[in-house]
Amino acid sequence: MTNGGLARLSINQETIKQWSLPELAEGCGKAGIDKVGLWRAPVQAYGVERTARLLADAGIGVTSLCRGGFFTALDPAERARALDDNRAAIDEAAALSTDTLVLVSGGLPPGSRDLHGARERVAEALAELAPYAAARGVRLAIEPLHPMYASDRCVVSTLAQALDLAERFPAEQVGVVVDTYHLWWDDRAPEQIARAGAGGRIHSFQLADWITPLPAGVLLGRGQLGDGSVDFRAFRRDVEASGFDGPIEVEIFNEALWARDGAEVLAEVAERYVQHAC
Amino acid sequence: MTNGGLARLSINQETIKQWSLPELAEGCGKAGIDKVGLWRAPVQAYGVERTARLLADAGIGVTSLCRGGFFTALDPAERARALDDNRAAIDEAAALSTDTLVLVSGGLPPGSRDLHGARERVAEALAELAPYAAARGVRLAIEPLHPMYASDRCVVSTLAQALDLAERFPAEQVGVVVDTYHLWWDDRAPEQIARAGAGGRIHSFQLADWITPLPAGVLLGRGQLGDGSVDFRAFRRDVEASGFDGPIEVEIFNEALWARDGAEVLAEVAERYVQHAC
Repeated sequence: MTNGGLARLSINQETIKQWSLPELAEGCGKAGIDKVGLWRAPVQAYGVERTARLLADAGIGVTSLCRGGFFTALDPAERARALDDNRAAIDEAAALSTDTLVLVSGGLPPGSRDLHGARERVAEALAELAPYAAARGVRLAIEPLHPMYASDRCVVSTLAQALDLAERFPAEQVGVVVDTYHLWWDDRAPEQIARAGAGGRIHSFQLADWITPLPAGVLLGRGQLGDGSVDFRAFRRDVEASGFDGPIEVEIFNEALWARDGAEVLAEVAERYVQHAC
Repeated sequence: MTNGGLARLSINQETIKQWSLPELAEGCGKAGIDKVGLWRAPVQAYGVERTARLLADAGIGVTSLCRGGFFTALDPAERARALDDNRAAIDEAAALSTDTLVLVSGGLPPGSRDLHGARERVAEALAELAPYAAARGVRLAIEPLHPMYASDRCVVSTLAQALDLAERFPAEQVGVVVDTYHLWWDDRAPEQIARAGAGGRIHSFQLADWITPLPAGVLLGRGQLGDGSVDFRAFRRDVEASGFDGPIEVEIFNEALWARDGAEVLAEVAERYVQHAC
Protein backbone atom coordinates (compact mmCIF):
# COMPACT_ATOMS: atom_id res chain seq x y z
CA MET A 1 0.00 0.00 0.00
CA THR A 2 1.01 3.59 -0.44
CA ASN A 3 0.94 5.82 2.59
CA GLY A 4 -0.46 8.87 0.77
CA GLY A 5 -0.94 11.72 3.21
CA LEU A 6 1.00 9.77 5.82
CA ALA A 7 4.37 10.15 4.06
CA ARG A 8 5.77 12.43 6.75
CA LEU A 9 4.01 10.89 9.75
CA SER A 10 6.13 9.35 12.50
CA ILE A 11 4.57 7.54 15.45
CA ASN A 12 6.21 8.05 18.81
CA GLN A 13 6.17 4.71 20.57
CA GLU A 14 4.73 6.21 23.77
CA THR A 15 1.54 7.02 21.86
CA ILE A 16 0.93 3.26 21.63
CA LYS A 17 2.75 2.22 24.76
CA GLN A 18 0.71 -0.98 24.96
CA TRP A 19 2.65 -2.31 21.96
CA SER A 20 6.01 -4.07 22.24
CA LEU A 21 8.68 -2.98 19.76
CA PRO A 22 7.95 -5.96 17.43
CA GLU A 23 4.25 -5.10 17.58
CA LEU A 24 5.09 -1.47 16.77
CA ALA A 25 7.23 -2.49 13.79
CA GLU A 26 4.58 -4.85 12.46
CA GLY A 27 1.67 -2.49 13.14
CA CYS A 28 3.35 0.47 11.47
CA GLY A 29 4.28 -1.70 8.49
CA LYS A 30 0.67 -2.78 8.05
CA ALA A 31 -0.52 0.83 8.33
CA GLY A 32 1.99 2.11 5.78
CA ILE A 33 3.89 4.19 8.32
CA ASP A 34 7.66 4.02 7.95
CA LYS A 35 8.93 6.19 10.82
CA VAL A 36 8.82 5.98 14.61
CA GLY A 37 10.09 7.99 17.57
CA LEU A 38 11.57 5.97 20.44
CA TRP A 39 12.11 6.23 24.18
CA ARG A 40 15.22 4.97 25.94
CA ALA A 41 13.64 2.74 28.60
CA PRO A 42 11.64 0.42 26.31
CA VAL A 43 14.52 0.33 23.82
CA GLN A 44 16.98 -0.62 26.55
CA ALA A 45 14.60 -3.30 27.80
CA TYR A 46 14.39 -4.84 24.31
CA GLY A 47 18.06 -4.19 23.56
CA VAL A 48 19.47 -1.23 21.63
CA GLU A 49 21.16 -3.23 18.86
CA ARG A 50 18.23 -5.60 18.67
CA THR A 51 15.84 -2.64 18.26
CA ALA A 52 18.05 -1.18 15.55
CA ARG A 53 18.00 -4.49 13.62
CA LEU A 54 14.26 -5.02 14.12
CA LEU A 55 13.41 -1.62 12.68
CA ALA A 56 15.98 -1.77 9.88
CA ASP A 57 14.62 -5.16 8.81
CA ALA A 58 11.10 -3.70 8.81
CA GLY A 59 12.21 -0.68 6.76
CA ILE A 60 11.28 1.70 9.55
CA GLY A 61 13.34 4.80 10.32
CA VAL A 62 13.84 6.39 13.72
CA THR A 63 13.01 10.10 13.79
CA SER A 64 14.04 10.81 17.38
CA LEU A 65 15.12 9.29 20.66
CA CYS A 66 13.64 10.58 23.92
CA ARG A 67 15.26 11.63 26.08
CA GLY A 68 18.43 13.11 27.41
CA GLY A 69 18.61 16.12 29.66
CA PHE A 70 17.99 16.72 33.37
CA PHE A 71 20.96 19.04 33.51
CA THR A 72 20.02 21.33 36.39
CA ALA A 73 21.44 19.63 39.47
CA LEU A 74 23.77 21.71 41.65
CA ASP A 75 25.62 18.77 43.19
CA PRO A 76 28.81 18.08 41.16
CA ALA A 77 28.53 14.30 41.46
CA GLU A 78 24.94 14.43 40.31
CA ARG A 79 25.92 16.68 37.39
CA ALA A 80 28.68 14.28 36.37
CA ARG A 81 26.22 11.38 36.45
CA ALA A 82 23.79 13.35 34.26
CA LEU A 83 26.51 14.04 31.70
CA ASP A 84 27.54 10.37 31.65
CA ASP A 85 23.95 9.34 31.18
CA ASN A 86 23.56 11.81 28.31
CA ARG A 87 26.67 10.47 26.60
CA ALA A 88 25.09 7.01 26.84
CA ALA A 89 21.87 8.40 25.34
CA ILE A 90 23.86 9.90 22.45
CA ASP A 91 25.55 6.53 21.85
CA GLU A 92 22.14 4.87 21.83
CA ALA A 93 20.78 7.43 19.36
CA ALA A 94 23.72 6.76 17.07
CA ALA A 95 23.22 3.00 17.36
CA LEU A 96 19.55 3.47 16.41
CA SER A 97 20.58 5.57 13.38
CA THR A 98 18.53 8.54 14.47
CA ASP A 99 20.06 11.99 14.11
CA THR A 100 18.02 13.56 16.93
CA LEU A 101 18.21 13.21 20.71
CA VAL A 102 15.40 15.09 22.48
CA LEU A 103 16.45 16.90 25.67
CA VAL A 104 14.18 17.69 28.61
CA SER A 105 16.25 20.16 30.55
CA GLY A 106 15.28 19.37 34.15
CA GLY A 107 13.54 21.41 36.83
CA LEU A 108 14.69 23.42 39.83
CA PRO A 109 16.91 21.59 42.32
CA PRO A 110 15.26 21.06 45.74
CA GLY A 111 14.96 24.37 47.59
CA SER A 112 16.16 26.48 44.66
CA ARG A 113 14.16 29.38 43.22
CA ASP A 114 16.79 30.36 40.65
CA LEU A 115 15.33 29.66 37.21
CA HIS A 116 17.98 31.74 35.47
CA GLY A 117 20.81 29.84 37.15
CA ALA A 118 19.23 26.52 36.25
CA ARG A 119 18.95 27.57 32.60
CA GLU A 120 22.63 28.52 32.61
CA ARG A 121 23.52 25.03 33.86
CA VAL A 122 21.62 23.65 30.87
CA ALA A 123 23.89 25.74 28.63
CA GLU A 124 26.99 24.42 30.41
CA ALA A 125 25.85 20.84 29.86
CA LEU A 126 25.15 21.53 26.19
CA ALA A 127 28.69 22.87 25.79
CA GLU A 128 30.05 19.59 27.11
CA LEU A 129 27.76 17.32 25.13
CA ALA A 130 27.29 19.00 21.75
CA PRO A 131 30.74 18.11 20.34
CA TYR A 132 30.42 14.52 21.63
CA ALA A 133 27.04 14.23 19.91
CA ALA A 134 28.23 15.87 16.70
CA ALA A 135 31.10 13.41 16.43
CA ARG A 136 28.49 10.62 16.40
CA GLY A 137 26.13 12.28 13.93
CA VAL A 138 23.57 13.17 16.60
CA ARG A 139 21.90 16.58 17.05
CA LEU A 140 20.70 17.73 20.46
CA ALA A 141 17.11 19.02 20.39
CA ILE A 142 16.06 21.19 23.33
CA GLU A 143 12.38 20.68 24.03
CA PRO A 144 10.61 23.59 25.69
CA LEU A 145 7.97 22.11 27.97
CA HIS A 146 4.73 23.83 28.95
CA PRO A 147 5.27 26.33 31.81
CA MET A 148 3.33 24.05 34.16
CA TYR A 149 6.45 21.83 34.22
CA ALA A 150 8.92 24.63 34.96
CA SER A 151 9.61 23.72 38.58
CA ASP A 152 9.85 19.94 38.46
CA ARG A 153 10.73 18.91 34.94
CA CYS A 154 11.94 21.59 32.57
CA VAL A 155 13.10 25.14 33.25
CA VAL A 156 12.94 25.84 29.50
CA SER A 157 9.31 26.85 28.97
CA THR A 158 9.14 28.71 25.66
CA LEU A 159 10.54 28.33 22.18
CA ALA A 160 12.26 31.70 22.64
CA GLN A 161 14.12 30.39 25.71
CA ALA A 162 15.07 27.18 23.91
CA LEU A 163 16.44 29.17 20.97
CA ASP A 164 18.32 31.53 23.28
CA LEU A 165 20.15 28.43 24.51
CA ALA A 166 20.48 26.63 21.18
CA GLU A 167 21.87 29.65 19.33
CA ARG A 168 24.99 29.62 21.49
CA PHE A 169 25.98 26.52 19.46
CA PRO A 170 26.14 25.59 15.77
CA ALA A 171 22.71 24.73 14.31
CA GLU A 172 23.86 21.28 13.21
CA GLN A 173 24.74 20.51 16.84
CA VAL A 174 21.93 22.04 18.91
CA GLY A 175 18.34 22.78 17.87
CA VAL A 176 14.86 22.67 19.29
CA VAL A 177 11.70 20.58 19.38
CA VAL A 178 8.46 22.27 18.31
CA ASP A 179 5.76 20.38 20.21
CA THR A 180 2.24 21.72 19.83
CA TYR A 181 1.18 20.53 23.29
CA HIS A 182 3.77 22.71 24.97
CA LEU A 183 3.59 25.79 22.74
CA TRP A 184 -0.02 26.15 21.57
CA TRP A 185 -0.94 28.87 24.11
CA ASP A 186 1.99 31.18 23.24
CA ASP A 187 1.22 34.07 20.88
CA ARG A 188 4.96 34.38 20.24
CA ALA A 189 5.21 30.81 18.91
CA PRO A 190 4.73 31.75 15.23
CA GLU A 191 7.53 34.33 15.28
CA GLN A 192 9.79 31.95 17.20
CA ILE A 193 9.06 29.10 14.78
CA ALA A 194 10.13 31.42 11.97
CA ARG A 195 13.32 32.21 13.92
CA ALA A 196 13.99 28.52 14.53
CA GLY A 197 13.38 27.53 10.92
CA ALA A 198 15.47 30.36 9.49
CA GLY A 199 18.36 29.13 11.61
CA GLY A 200 17.88 25.49 10.62
CA ARG A 201 17.15 24.62 14.22
CA ILE A 202 13.83 22.76 14.07
CA HIS A 203 15.17 19.30 14.78
CA SER A 204 11.84 17.76 15.65
CA PHE A 205 8.16 18.63 15.14
CA GLN A 206 5.74 16.83 17.45
CA LEU A 207 1.96 16.84 17.70
CA ALA A 208 -0.44 16.30 20.60
CA ASP A 209 -3.65 18.09 21.45
CA TRP A 210 -4.41 20.14 24.58
CA ILE A 211 -7.43 18.89 26.53
CA THR A 212 -8.87 19.67 29.96
CA PRO A 213 -9.46 18.99 32.77
CA LEU A 214 -5.83 18.18 33.45
CA PRO A 215 -5.23 15.03 35.51
CA ALA A 216 -3.37 15.12 38.85
CA GLY A 217 0.35 15.51 38.17
CA VAL A 218 -0.47 16.83 34.66
CA LEU A 219 1.71 14.26 32.86
CA LEU A 220 -0.77 11.99 31.13
CA GLY A 221 -3.41 14.44 29.95
CA ARG A 222 -2.43 14.90 26.31
CA GLY A 223 -5.22 14.65 23.80
CA GLN A 224 -5.75 12.73 20.59
CA LEU A 225 -5.40 15.05 17.60
CA GLY A 226 -8.63 16.95 17.08
CA ASP A 227 -9.99 16.43 20.60
CA GLY A 228 -8.73 19.72 21.99
CA SER A 229 -7.65 23.33 21.47
CA VAL A 230 -4.64 23.05 19.17
CA ASP A 231 -4.83 24.44 15.64
CA PHE A 232 -2.51 21.87 14.01
CA ARG A 233 -2.90 23.23 10.51
CA ALA A 234 -1.72 26.67 11.65
CA PHE A 235 1.31 25.11 13.38
CA ARG A 236 2.17 23.03 10.31
CA ARG A 237 1.80 26.06 8.06
CA ASP A 238 4.17 28.10 10.27
CA VAL A 239 6.68 25.27 10.58
CA GLU A 240 6.73 24.62 6.83
CA ALA A 241 6.85 28.32 5.99
CA SER A 242 10.02 28.45 8.08
CA GLY A 243 11.63 25.88 5.80
CA PHE A 244 11.10 22.67 7.75
CA ASP A 245 10.20 19.62 5.65
CA GLY A 246 11.11 16.81 8.06
CA PRO A 247 9.04 14.18 9.82
CA ILE A 248 5.94 15.04 11.82
CA GLU A 249 5.84 12.94 14.96
CA VAL A 250 2.71 12.24 16.97
CA GLU A 251 3.50 11.85 20.67
CA ILE A 252 0.47 11.52 22.96
CA PHE A 253 0.60 10.39 26.59
CA ASN A 254 -2.94 9.36 27.44
CA GLU A 255 -4.06 6.46 29.59
CA ALA A 256 -7.34 6.10 27.72
CA LEU A 257 -5.44 5.53 24.45
CA TRP A 258 -3.13 3.05 26.17
CA ALA A 259 -6.13 1.01 27.34
CA ARG A 260 -7.35 0.43 23.78
CA ASP A 261 -6.28 -1.94 21.00
CA GLY A 262 -3.00 -0.65 19.54
CA ALA A 263 -3.96 -1.08 15.88
CA GLU A 264 -7.20 0.79 16.50
CA VAL A 265 -5.32 3.67 18.15
CA LEU A 266 -2.81 3.80 15.30
CA ALA A 267 -5.59 3.90 12.71
CA GLU A 268 -7.30 6.68 14.63
CA VAL A 269 -4.07 8.69 14.92
CA ALA A 270 -3.49 8.36 11.16
CA GLU A 271 -7.07 9.40 10.40
CA ARG A 272 -6.96 12.37 12.77
CA TYR A 273 -3.57 13.40 11.40
CA VAL A 274 -4.95 13.56 7.87
CA GLN A 275 -8.10 15.30 9.07
CA HIS A 276 -6.46 17.95 11.27
CA ALA A 277 -2.82 18.34 10.24
CA CYS A 278 -2.71 17.79 6.48
CA MET B 1 -0.57 46.72 68.26
CA THR B 2 1.27 48.15 65.27
CA ASN B 3 1.37 46.10 62.13
CA GLY B 4 5.03 46.77 61.41
CA GLY B 5 6.12 44.90 58.27
CA LEU B 6 2.49 44.13 57.56
CA ALA B 7 1.57 47.71 56.63
CA ARG B 8 1.03 46.86 52.95
CA LEU B 9 -0.33 43.34 53.41
CA SER B 10 -3.85 42.59 52.23
CA ILE B 11 -5.50 39.21 52.79
CA ASN B 12 -7.66 37.89 50.01
CA GLN B 13 -10.66 36.26 51.64
CA GLU B 14 -10.27 33.07 49.57
CA THR B 15 -6.99 32.42 51.38
CA ILE B 16 -9.03 31.86 54.54
CA LYS B 17 -12.22 30.65 52.92
CA GLN B 18 -13.26 28.87 56.13
CA TRP B 19 -13.91 32.28 57.70
CA SER B 20 -17.19 34.17 57.35
CA LEU B 21 -16.93 37.87 56.57
CA PRO B 22 -17.42 38.85 60.25
CA GLU B 23 -14.71 36.35 61.23
CA LEU B 24 -12.44 37.81 58.57
CA ALA B 25 -13.02 41.37 59.83
CA GLU B 26 -12.43 40.36 63.43
CA GLY B 27 -9.44 38.12 62.67
CA CYS B 28 -7.70 40.74 60.53
CA GLY B 29 -8.33 43.37 63.20
CA LYS B 30 -6.72 41.18 65.87
CA ALA B 31 -3.74 40.50 63.60
CA GLY B 32 -3.21 44.17 62.77
CA ILE B 33 -4.09 43.75 59.11
CA ASP B 34 -6.26 46.52 57.71
CA LYS B 35 -6.86 45.42 54.12
CA VAL B 36 -8.65 42.55 52.43
CA GLY B 37 -9.42 41.37 48.90
CA LEU B 38 -12.94 40.08 48.31
CA TRP B 39 -14.80 37.69 46.01
CA ARG B 40 -18.26 38.36 44.65
CA ALA B 41 -20.04 35.15 45.69
CA PRO B 42 -19.37 35.30 49.46
CA VAL B 43 -19.98 39.06 49.44
CA GLN B 44 -23.32 38.61 47.66
CA ALA B 45 -24.28 35.86 50.12
CA TYR B 46 -23.58 38.17 53.07
CA GLY B 47 -24.97 41.23 51.29
CA VAL B 48 -22.94 43.85 49.43
CA GLU B 49 -24.02 46.87 51.52
CA ARG B 50 -23.78 44.84 54.70
CA THR B 51 -20.23 43.80 53.80
CA ALA B 52 -19.31 47.41 53.06
CA ARG B 53 -20.62 48.53 56.50
CA LEU B 54 -18.99 45.61 58.32
CA LEU B 55 -15.57 46.39 56.91
CA ALA B 56 -15.90 50.16 57.25
CA ASP B 57 -16.87 49.74 60.90
CA ALA B 58 -13.82 47.53 61.44
CA GLY B 59 -11.53 50.03 59.72
CA ILE B 60 -10.65 47.56 56.99
CA GLY B 61 -10.15 48.64 53.39
CA VAL B 62 -10.93 46.59 50.29
CA THR B 63 -8.00 46.30 47.88
CA SER B 64 -9.77 44.40 45.09
CA LEU B 65 -12.92 42.57 44.11
CA CYS B 66 -12.67 39.27 42.21
CA ARG B 67 -13.91 38.87 39.63
CA GLY B 68 -15.38 40.11 36.43
CA GLY B 69 -14.48 38.82 33.02
CA PHE B 70 -15.41 35.72 31.01
CA PHE B 71 -15.68 37.79 27.87
CA THR B 72 -14.90 35.23 25.18
CA ALA B 73 -18.30 33.75 24.26
CA LEU B 74 -19.26 33.85 20.59
CA ASP B 75 -23.02 33.71 21.15
CA PRO B 76 -24.44 37.29 21.20
CA ALA B 77 -26.94 36.56 24.00
CA GLU B 78 -24.19 35.03 26.10
CA ARG B 79 -21.95 38.03 25.44
CA ALA B 80 -24.73 40.42 26.46
CA ARG B 81 -25.25 38.47 29.69
CA ALA B 82 -21.51 38.64 30.41
CA LEU B 83 -21.47 42.42 29.94
CA ASP B 84 -24.52 42.81 32.20
CA ASP B 85 -22.86 40.69 34.85
CA ASN B 86 -19.69 42.76 34.61
CA ARG B 87 -21.62 46.00 35.03
CA ALA B 88 -23.11 44.45 38.18
CA ALA B 89 -19.60 43.55 39.36
CA ILE B 90 -18.46 47.13 38.79
CA ASP B 91 -21.43 48.41 40.81
CA GLU B 92 -20.52 46.00 43.61
CA ALA B 93 -16.89 47.15 43.55
CA ALA B 94 -18.03 50.77 43.86
CA ALA B 95 -20.39 49.87 46.73
CA LEU B 96 -17.48 48.17 48.51
CA SER B 97 -15.30 51.27 47.99
CA THR B 98 -12.61 49.35 46.18
CA ASP B 99 -11.05 50.93 43.12
CA THR B 100 -10.08 47.62 41.50
CA LEU B 101 -12.14 44.92 39.78
CA VAL B 102 -10.04 41.90 38.80
CA LEU B 103 -10.89 40.39 35.40
CA VAL B 104 -10.37 36.77 34.39
CA SER B 105 -10.82 36.92 30.66
CA GLY B 106 -12.41 33.55 29.89
CA GLY B 107 -11.24 30.57 27.85
CA LEU B 108 -11.95 29.28 24.36
CA PRO B 109 -15.62 28.78 23.47
CA PRO B 110 -16.56 25.10 22.93
CA GLY B 111 -15.02 23.80 19.70
CA SER B 112 -12.98 26.94 19.04
CA ARG B 113 -9.21 26.92 18.50
CA ASP B 114 -8.92 30.66 17.87
CA LEU B 115 -6.97 32.19 20.76
CA HIS B 116 -6.35 35.41 18.86
CA GLY B 117 -10.04 35.90 18.15
CA ALA B 118 -10.92 35.23 21.78
CA ARG B 119 -8.39 37.85 22.92
CA GLU B 120 -9.93 40.37 20.54
CA ARG B 121 -13.35 39.74 22.09
CA VAL B 122 -11.79 40.58 25.46
CA ALA B 123 -10.71 43.92 24.00
CA GLU B 124 -14.23 44.55 22.68
CA ALA B 125 -15.71 43.92 26.12
CA LEU B 126 -13.15 46.23 27.75
CA ALA B 127 -14.16 48.99 25.35
CA GLU B 128 -17.77 48.63 26.49
CA LEU B 129 -17.02 48.39 30.19
CA ALA B 130 -14.08 50.71 30.86
CA PRO B 131 -16.07 53.99 30.64
CA TYR B 132 -18.87 52.51 32.78
CA ALA B 133 -16.30 51.51 35.40
CA ALA B 134 -14.43 54.82 35.24
CA ALA B 135 -17.65 56.72 35.89
CA ARG B 136 -17.95 54.75 39.14
CA GLY B 137 -14.33 55.14 40.22
CA VAL B 138 -13.42 51.54 39.42
CA ARG B 139 -10.39 50.38 37.43
CA LEU B 140 -10.47 47.16 35.43
CA ALA B 141 -7.46 44.93 36.15
CA ILE B 142 -6.73 42.23 33.56
CA GLU B 143 -5.21 39.21 35.27
CA PRO B 144 -2.99 37.04 33.10
CA LEU B 145 -3.48 33.47 34.28
CA HIS B 146 -0.88 30.72 33.99
CA PRO B 147 -0.81 29.19 30.48
CA MET B 148 -2.25 25.96 31.89
CA TYR B 149 -5.61 27.81 32.09
CA ALA B 150 -5.52 29.14 28.51
CA SER B 151 -8.20 26.85 27.08
CA ASP B 152 -10.81 26.78 29.82
CA ARG B 153 -10.40 29.89 31.93
CA CYS B 154 -8.24 32.68 30.58
CA VAL B 155 -6.87 33.24 27.08
CA VAL B 156 -4.60 35.97 28.49
CA SER B 157 -1.54 34.03 29.67
CA THR B 158 1.30 36.51 30.00
CA LEU B 159 1.81 39.97 31.37
CA ALA B 160 2.83 41.08 27.87
CA GLN B 161 -0.52 39.94 26.45
CA ALA B 162 -2.41 41.64 29.29
CA LEU B 163 -0.55 44.89 28.66
CA ASP B 164 -1.14 44.65 24.91
CA LEU B 165 -4.85 44.69 25.76
CA ALA B 166 -4.72 47.23 28.59
CA GLU B 167 -2.67 49.77 26.65
CA ARG B 168 -5.52 50.27 24.18
CA PHE B 169 -7.25 52.16 27.02
CA PRO B 170 -6.29 54.93 29.47
CA ALA B 171 -4.19 53.65 32.39
CA GLU B 172 -6.66 54.93 34.96
CA GLN B 173 -9.33 52.76 33.33
CA VAL B 174 -7.60 49.48 32.46
CA GLY B 175 -4.53 47.93 34.05
CA VAL B 176 -3.19 44.52 35.03
CA VAL B 177 -2.76 42.18 37.97
CA VAL B 178 0.75 40.96 38.72
CA ASP B 179 0.22 37.58 40.42
CA THR B 180 3.35 35.61 41.21
CA TYR B 181 1.60 32.25 40.86
CA HIS B 182 0.77 32.91 37.23
CA LEU B 183 3.94 34.70 36.14
CA TRP B 184 6.84 33.19 38.08
CA TRP B 185 8.04 30.93 35.25
CA ASP B 186 8.28 33.73 32.65
CA ASP B 187 11.73 35.19 32.02
CA ARG B 188 10.02 38.20 30.41
CA ALA B 189 8.09 39.04 33.60
CA PRO B 190 10.69 41.52 34.95
CA GLU B 191 10.74 43.59 31.73
CA GLN B 192 6.94 43.46 31.51
CA ILE B 193 6.57 44.53 35.14
CA ALA B 194 8.77 47.52 34.32
CA ARG B 195 6.53 48.28 31.33
CA ALA B 196 3.40 47.97 33.46
CA GLY B 197 4.73 50.12 36.25
CA ALA B 198 6.05 52.83 33.91
CA GLY B 199 2.56 53.09 32.46
CA GLY B 200 0.87 53.20 35.87
CA ARG B 201 -0.93 49.97 35.05
CA ILE B 202 -0.15 47.72 38.02
CA HIS B 203 -3.58 47.81 39.63
CA SER B 204 -3.03 44.79 41.84
CA PHE B 205 -0.06 42.78 43.11
CA GLN B 206 -0.89 39.30 44.40
CA LEU B 207 1.23 36.60 45.99
CA ALA B 208 0.96 32.82 46.06
CA ASP B 209 3.65 30.17 45.78
CA TRP B 210 4.04 27.53 43.05
CA ILE B 211 4.07 23.97 44.39
CA THR B 212 3.88 20.53 42.77
CA PRO B 213 2.49 18.00 42.15
CA LEU B 214 -0.49 19.86 40.76
CA PRO B 215 -3.89 18.48 41.78
CA ALA B 216 -6.44 17.26 39.23
CA GLY B 217 -8.05 20.28 37.56
CA VAL B 218 -5.09 22.43 38.71
CA LEU B 219 -7.27 25.01 40.50
CA LEU B 220 -6.54 24.43 44.18
CA GLY B 221 -2.81 23.76 44.15
CA ARG B 222 -1.42 27.13 45.17
CA GLY B 223 1.20 27.10 47.86
CA GLN B 224 1.68 28.96 51.12
CA LEU B 225 4.40 31.60 50.73
CA GLY B 226 7.80 29.97 51.06
CA ASP B 227 6.65 26.43 50.30
CA GLY B 228 7.48 26.53 46.62
CA SER B 229 9.49 27.93 43.73
CA VAL B 230 8.59 31.62 43.69
CA ASP B 231 11.23 34.22 44.49
CA PHE B 232 8.90 36.75 46.15
CA ARG B 233 11.62 39.18 47.05
CA ALA B 234 12.71 39.43 43.40
CA PHE B 235 9.11 40.06 42.33
CA ARG B 236 8.61 42.71 44.99
CA ARG B 237 11.88 44.38 44.03
CA ASP B 238 10.83 44.50 40.35
CA VAL B 239 7.33 45.73 41.15
CA GLU B 240 8.57 48.47 43.46
CA ALA B 241 11.36 49.49 41.08
CA SER B 242 8.62 50.06 38.50
CA GLY B 243 7.00 52.62 40.81
CA PHE B 244 4.27 50.55 42.46
CA ASP B 245 3.73 51.24 46.15
CA GLY B 246 0.23 49.84 46.63
CA PRO B 247 -1.12 46.93 48.65
CA ILE B 248 0.36 43.44 48.44
CA GLU B 249 -2.41 40.89 48.48
CA VAL B 250 -1.96 37.24 49.42
CA GLU B 251 -4.36 35.01 47.53
CA ILE B 252 -3.85 31.27 48.01
CA PHE B 253 -6.35 28.57 46.98
CA ASN B 254 -5.32 25.50 48.93
CA GLU B 255 -7.57 22.91 50.50
CA ALA B 256 -5.05 22.07 53.21
CA LEU B 257 -5.05 25.70 54.37
CA TRP B 258 -8.86 25.76 54.31
CA ALA B 259 -8.99 22.72 56.59
CA ARG B 260 -7.03 24.49 59.34
CA ASP B 261 -7.97 27.06 61.97
CA GLY B 262 -8.36 30.43 60.27
CA ALA B 263 -6.43 32.45 62.84
CA GLU B 264 -3.56 29.98 62.63
CA VAL B 265 -3.50 30.29 58.82
CA LEU B 266 -3.58 34.08 58.99
CA ALA B 267 -0.70 34.13 61.47
CA GLU B 268 1.29 31.80 59.24
CA VAL B 269 0.59 33.93 56.14
CA ALA B 270 1.75 37.05 57.98
CA GLU B 271 4.90 35.31 59.23
CA ARG B 272 5.73 33.88 55.81
CA TYR B 273 5.05 37.25 54.19
CA VAL B 274 7.57 38.97 56.44
CA GLN B 275 10.05 36.12 55.99
CA HIS B 276 9.85 35.80 52.19
CA ALA B 277 8.44 39.03 50.76
CA CYS B 278 9.72 41.85 52.98
